[in-house]
Amino acid sequence: MSLIVKKFGGSSVANAERVFNVANIITDEYKKGNDVIVVVSAQGDTTDDLIAKANEINPGRASKREMDMLLSAGEQISIALLAMAIEKLGCPVTSLLGWQAGFVTDSNHGIARIKRIESERLRAELSKRNIIIVAGFQGLNKYDDITTLGRGGSDTSAVAIAAALKADRCQIYTDVDGVYTTDPRKVKSAKKIDEITYDEMLELANLGAQVLNNRSVEMAKKYNVELEVLSSLENKPGTIVKEKVKMEKTLIKGVATDCNVTSISVVGLKDTPGVAFKLFNILAQKKINVDIILQSVGRDGTKDITFTVADNMHDEAIEALESNKDIFDYNKLSFDNNIAKVSIVGAGMESHPGVASKMFEALFDAGINIQMISTSEIKVSVLIEKKYAEKAQQAIHDKFII
Amino acid sequence: MSLIVKKFGGSSVANAERVFNVANIITDEYKKGNDVIVVVSAQGDTTDDLIAKANEINPGRASKREMDMLLSAGEQISIALLAMAIEKLGCPVTSLLGWQAGFVTDSNHGIARIKRIESERLRAELSKRNIIIVAGFQGLNKYDDITTLGRGGSDTSAVAIAAALKADRCQIYTDVDGVYTTDPRKVKSAKKIDEITYDEMLELANLGAQVLNNRSVEMAKKYNVELEVLSSLENKPGTIVKEKVKMEKTLIKGVATDCNVTSISVVGLKDTPGVAFKLFNILAQKKINVDIILQSVGRDGTKDITFTVADNMHDEAIEALESNKDIFDYNKLSFDNNIAKVSIVGAGMESHPGVASKMFEALFDAGINIQMISTSEIKVSVLIEKKYAEKAQQAIHDKFII
Repeated sequence: MSLIVKKFGGSSVANAERVFNVANIITDEYKKGNDVIVVVSAQGDTTDDLIAKANEINPGRASKREMDMLLSAGEQISIALLAMAIEKLGCPVTSLLGWQAGFVTDSNHGIARIKRIESERLRAELSKRNIIIVAGFQGLNKYDDITTLGRGGSDTSAVAIAAALKADRCQIYTDVDGVYTTDPRKVKSAKKIDEITYDEMLELANLGAQVLNNRSVEMAKKYNVELEVLSSLENKPGTIVKEKVKMEKTLIKGVATDCNVTSISVVGLKDTPGVAFKLFNILAQKKINVDIILQSVGRDGTKDITFTVADNMHDEAIEALESNKDIFDYNKLSFDNNIAKVSIVGAGMESHPGVASKMFEALFDAGINIQMISTSEIKVSVLIEKKYAEKAQQAIHDKFII
Repeated sequence: MSLIVKKFGGSSVANAERVFNVANIITDEYKKGNDVIVVVSAQGDTTDDLIAKANEINPGRASKREMDMLLSAGEQISIALLAMAIEKLGCPVTSLLGWQAGFVTDSNHGIARIKRIESERLRAELSKRNIIIVAGFQGLNKYDDITTLGRGGSDTSAVAIAAALKADRCQIYTDVDGVYTTDPRKVKSAKKIDEITYDEMLELANLGAQVLNNRSVEMAKKYNVELEVLSSLENKPGTIVKEKVKMEKTLIKGVATDCNVTSISVVGLKDTPGVAFKLFNILAQKKINVDIILQSVGRDGTKDITFTVADNMHDEAIEALESNKDIFDYNKLSFDNNIAKVSIVGAGMESHPGVASKMFEALFDAGINIQMISTSEIKVSVLIEKKYAEKAQQAIHDKFII
């Protein structure tokens, strides 16, 4: 007998028909003799609807505590409905809110971190052979106030339970049947990946392959929880995410494209120690995430720094730099949001020379100019003109994976 | 400085505009220097919408535990939104779910009784001079499962808090400005009552004047909580409900009409001891509430029993009697749902002879035949043909109150 944790997103339980589809997946697993804990998100657009209600009252300025109180009602509704469907299918079931399932978090409302899971109730329900339906995305802080983990937090909830109860597997159900070598909607030759390492998955998620929430993959890596990404609509194996995977023919696990990127150049900075620290410290204080950073030597004892941020952080980043011009002097600021980032990811890359140059060759053959390059142990990213994003993705994918 | 408990129903917070109306009432009270605890129901049709969702999954057969999990999300949404509105108006506020406010109930899901209020959190928030918004209708049982108090339970929640914290007053806001001598939509001469006793209010509520939930009035009486029924739309005094009220000119506090009534006659019962007990015991086991009971002598050593139930209990009552014919024999069953019950209520009635006959005189003058009569210390009820209900109500009201 195994303990299986399953997580279903909001679209998987959007209406009564889908709720029953999910209920059948759960009861099939239970009838095999396995223990089943299910984590579920709010139905379909519920969270957006609740945010809209808050915006009618105090647009964008409601306290985070009250937002958490409001939003956590969404999962409360979905766990009750899913439990009712399982009741109808004749299996014993109990729904539990985040706090009932023992989720203790810090007090950062809206983006709370799980501190621990007090698993007595979960264990008690399992010992009664009850299927357990847990509200994802939510917990309780030490003041007995409800917190939420932020969007995508239900993945993290599922992995946390799997880690706390040493589950045999944590299955994340989505509307795709696994992780692909690149976006299958754009590149027809994209292939489903059978197994992938945590690190590769993290790089792919960071690079725009939004299948799994990153925090959940980090937590799975930390506690060595074996993940499976699979479809709630098709009954077939998905992609396994774990520490070590069997060798594959191809070095490169995937090609990812991210068009939501703006590069900002700070030109003519004084070439003195601490300039980069001061610059990125200001951005960090404003909670602006910086991705690629490139520093080059400028003219006359100055240097230039170029970095990328998400498109919607662009205004804030520019404003932060302009309003702090007294702290670090520069000649001019410029930006470019007509760019895309294309990346290849593969854990074996570092020990195989020539991977980067093979990528650059693919782009050269396709006539695409590279504006910036950034590399890590398991990935190579390039910035190119936005209109070439899909062409580049296809060319690189064909080069490595076909 | 006083402690005021205010309760607002679902229609009072049905949309953003009404939420702000309520928020203004609350902050006005707070700015007078008073401590304010607010109990609020789910917005408008939320509860009905949630029930409809459950009925899509397992119509009428979902477990009561899961129904409570589902329905209690409704108040969670309304308390968060109301708290956000008060935040916007610049006053400190905290919303609390039933369990956070310390509501401990028994385990009768759907119709739970409040066992106690563990008031530490409420007191702590008051000591910080926070306005507190509490989710009505809900609590927690000893297994840490969410329970609901049944429809109208928010009134009870409010009174329970007022009792536990010895509040100076418990104000129940509705869409009418108080309790009337009869239904003001039907009888133009209806007058607002300034003060009424708990017992009179209980009789009026039982008789169809659905202003206050009965359990809340019973609890207010038990703990001597002074209630005020008033309008959330007009800023003027309502009706005070308390133990002793000042003498009024009229003996009769109100005239109530209930058209949701069916009479059932069991004819030709054996005239042996225990027949009535057996009959009403069967109905009690089926949780069928019986209102008026009348027993009369029949022919040939038999007796007849006639009683009334709510219209929607009619089929169940008939079925219960027919399927238990072996336990108590009778000749025939008949029923009449073309009737209405009209009643007068007044605490001084018992010591003033002639009240009942004055009521019968009013009906005689109006040419209305009386089918059954039932009296208690503070009320007289008659059953008449349904089509005369409004005419009877007007005639009796004019006789006593104008």
